[in-house]
Amino acid sequence: MTRTVLESKTKTVVIGFDEPFCVIGERINPTGRKKLAAELEAGNFDTVLKDALEQVACGANVLDVNSGAVFTNKMAEDPRYADNNFVEPPLMRELILRIQAITDVPLCIDSSVPGALEEGLKACEGRPLLNSVTGEEERLERVLPLVKKYNVPVVAISNDDTGISEDPDVRFAVAKKIVERAADFGIPAHDIVVDPLVMPVGAMGSAGQQVFTLVRRLRDELGVNTTCGASNISFGLPHRHGINAAFLPMAIGAGMTSAIMNPVRSVEMEAIRAANFLMNHDANGGEWIRFSKVLEAVEGGMSFAEASAAQASAGGRGGRRGGRSRA
Amino acid sequence: MTRTVLESKTKTVVIGFDEPFCVIGERINPTGRKKLAAELEAGNFDTVLKDALEQVACGANVLDVNSGAVFTNKMAEDPRYADNNFVEPPLMRELILRIQAITDVPLCIDSSVPGALEEGLKACEGRPLLNSVTGEEERLERVLPLVKKYNVPVVAISNDDTGISEDPDVRFAVAKKIVERAADFGIPAHDIVVDPLVMPVGAMGSAGQQVFTLVRRLRDELGVNTTCGASNISFGLPHRHGINAAFLPMAIGAGMTSAIMNPVRSVEMEAIRAANFLMNHDANGGEWIRFSKVLEAVEGGMSFAEASAAQASAGGRGGRRGGRSRA
Repeated sequence: MTRTVLESKTKTVVIGFDEPFCVIGERINPTGRKKLAAELEAGNFDTVLKDALEQVACGANVLDVNSGAVFTNKMAEDPRYADNNFVEPPLMRELILRIQAITDVPLCIDSSVPGALEEGLKACEGRPLLNSVTGEEERLERVLPLVKKYNVPVVAISNDDTGISEDPDVRFAVAKKIVERAADFGIPAHDIVVDPLVMPVGAMGSAGQQVFTLVRRLRDELGVNTTCGASNISFGLPHRHGINAAFLPMAIGAGMTSAIMNPVRSVEMEAIRAANFLMNHDANGGEWIRFSKVLEAVEGGMSFAEASAAQASAGGRGGRRGGRSRA
Repeated sequence: MTRTVLESKTKTVVIGFDEPFCVIGERINPTGRKKLAAELEAGNFDTVLKDALEQVACGANVLDVNSGAVFTNKMAEDPRYADNNFVEPPLMRELILRIQAITDVPLCIDSSVPGALEEGLKACEGRPLLNSVTGEEERLERVLPLVKKYNVPVVAISNDDTGISEDPDVRFAVAKKIVERAADFGIPAHDIVVDPLVMPVGAMGSAGQQVFTLVRRLRDELGVNTTCGASNISFGLPHRHGINAAFLPMAIGAGMTSAIMNPVRSVEMEAIRAANFLMNHDANGGEWIRFSKVLEAVEGGMSFAEASAAQASAGGRGGRRGGRSRA
């Protein structure tokens, strides 16, 4: 049975076929968030810390930490800031240190810069998830040694030097190549979490079916856990949350075991909690019943983040009833 | 490719693996609806006709018509009314005639009384769905000849003389027996729509998984379409619609092709329309985009039924753009 073990200093999270779906919070990411990038450039971590706490309260099991900031002002003064190899490593270290000081969930170190991945690995307590390796040769040769050296699991994205294939069989072959290459480094398949790549269903009608088929094959043939950028499925469509809230249970039913997503959205989180229950991963519906109290508070006018935080501090998930102990 | 063909006088609906999910509206059923039963006893069909139109506007592809009324007042005056074999056949005939006079979707004739099933078959134009046969010997011997005589498809419920088994393998075996017995009557498997029986997940944690596994087996091993009483999955739980709205996409992903359900619920219908899109059964998302306009009207304060009716009369589904033509 495939189990990918992540750890913070005090908490263990297992991604696995027999586990509740693992929600990896995606909010801490300056890409496309100009205001957040400007704050980071000014050395202001307020939004990062607020996002960290809010995501955990809403049900994130793991927090993704992406250091991909562009420091426009500094760049104008010092040309070294135009290079992400210069910007990201110290920023990643700072982000990790500050986030793990106020939360207890495992982290996911997310960067396209190998130096930032390594700074994150050095700063991180426990066993973080590394995000990511791809099938690109240069990336395989740079990232897999880090995975081996630090003995951590890694997200493997199924594109390679030829780009992202629209053919799911090619994406499967890329995933297989990464798993095999990792094995050459002594990295076991249970430490590879494959992202089969989710296309927008508005642009490609078969996008949903492709993911469901790929997830099943990845699980049956390679024995790996899977993840995805879930919201990509609904890109460009009206009422995106409705598409996402059907996609997630269908992907979970097909065997998907985690997603990188925004947990501060009640519609998607409701779908995931219901799917956990329907997969028999919520004993006696205890989590569902606790979550239904959050939904009642939302119906009463609270925001989802407020209602989740109130429920957590009242002794629900993440609170004193055992959520913080090592599982 | 399994195709179960239903017809009204003017409209064809196909239940099939390559078709959008077939929604069978469950509202026209006096069981547990005392007010409706009292109206029917008084010869008042207003609620029935309103429910018929509303369900079709909201997206029902087929209307279930259940004649299981208890006529309490008449029973006190005339003991024959204590016998459903006396009450239901003329009531079913009346219901069918009135409903098909104002709607154009195929009907599903639903009774535990064989005489009511036959009266429904006589009154119905086109090719209705018969609901239901079970694995009980007496029921097989009474209903299958009607199925053969009228050349209609039938819902097969997977319980037998020993009751409803909690073991999914037994329920599969009962379904298989019904399909084989039907074959003895010359009834093809594509005219059997199996209901694998949905248990409440609050009482049995494996209930969801059982259905998903059974649906896949029924499809792969027997080649039959499937249906279920979808809302049973959430019986007894808080926020039932959230469970239903995850269950339906997961069942559709597993291969379920229809459900008997309340279509006047936007949450469940949104989940089904999103799942159709994700199954690549909604070309270019045309249905999703039309439906998103209904959701916008609901957000603006209209009821789902009102918004659906407004959208239908504006030329959406069921309107002039071709929805009423024979597919």
